[in-house]
Amino acid sequence: MTNDSRERMVRSAASLISTRGVSATSFSDVVADSGAPRGSIYHHFPQGKQQLATEAIQWTSDRVVAYLRAGTDASPAAVLTRFIQLWRQVVVTSSAASGCVVAGVALDTGVDAALMDVARDTFRSWEAVLADQLEKAGTPAGRARGVAIATLAGMEGALILCRAEGNVQPLDDVAGELMRLLPE
Amino acid sequence: MTNDSRERMVRSAASLISTRGVSATSFSDVVADSGAPRGSIYHHFPQGKQQLATEAIQWTSDRVVAYLRAGTDASPAAVLTRFIQLWRQVVVTSSAASGCVVAGVALDTGVDAALMDVARDTFRSWEAVLADQLEKAGTPAGRARGVAIATLAGMEGALILCRAEGNVQPLDDVAGELMRLLPE
Repeated sequence: MTNDSRERMVRSAASLISTRGVSATSFSDVVADSGAPRGSIYHHFPQGKQQLATEAIQWTSDRVVAYLRAGTDASPAAVLTRFIQLWRQVVVTSSAASGCVVAGVALDTGVDAALMDVARDTFRSWEAVLADQLEKAGTPAGRARGVAIATLAGMEGALILCRAEGNVQPLDDVAGELMRLLPE
Repeated sequence: MTNDSRERMVRSAASLISTRGVSATSFSDVVADSGAPRGSIYHHFPQGKQQLATEAIQWTSDRVVAYLRAGTDASPAAVLTRFIQLWRQVVVTSSAASGCVVAGVALDTGVDAALMDVARDTFRSWEAVLADQLEKAGTPAGRARGVAIATLAGMEGALILCRAEGNVQPLDDVAGELMRLLPE
């Protein structure tokens, strides 16, 4: 029960930070969104909002990495499509209002150095997992990392364009171009 | 003199919004950063922060479009390099602390619909100018728009990765991949 409410708060924080960034996400917002008892948030996150944001990134990243590793995709194109689909879902299910929790931290000037390190390490780990999956599916080793970072940047940028447009079209356009980076 | 201080405020707003977003940029911040007289900001921007943010986007966009149009680049690769160089400068001169003013608006949940329309239209105009320049330099018409949107998204995403890394390396990596989208 306690763990349930703790996880609900982390999940709410991930969702709110993805949309608003860290500074604009207060403990009160997280309490309201998660329906958790107000006092418990101070109990669970005694180090404050930076701790909650760190766990929100880690919770998201665990799911992203597990999803990527669960793929048994036979081709580089299938690996890339799987990664892109993850971000496409974020746009579609939020009506183009949400983004990426790690970007919400990286773009926030109010976060401390330790939290920024978590954001940096998370981006690096996503890039590494994607490059690894691409290589396993047959992308030449010399190309996998480049395609991975271009795809990560392309999706992060597409999330911004989708928010401005209010729909998923920019992401689909960018996805079509990213597929062209794969060897024939 | 009055126009000077007005432009200084718009320029400061562009810089602050690029780094912090709209919500975290107050009139007081703009007054402090620009050195303009406090009272004058209410005189020049009677409709408030949304008006100042709109002008900050337009001021930036005018310079971006003029810079792109001033190019007489003979090849698609030169056109793309010119566009990428613009964003590279933002990262380098800010020590990877700043980003794009339009993204600062698009990602802010506190902006009104009219300001979000300005962000959307600005992204569209940059994409259109870049596609136009690519086509004039010899990119097949059917490819120019796709390359342009992938490049815009790639740069916007790279600005986020550069902030997380604290250096310009991710942008350079992404740039190398974007060049591969051009026809041989």
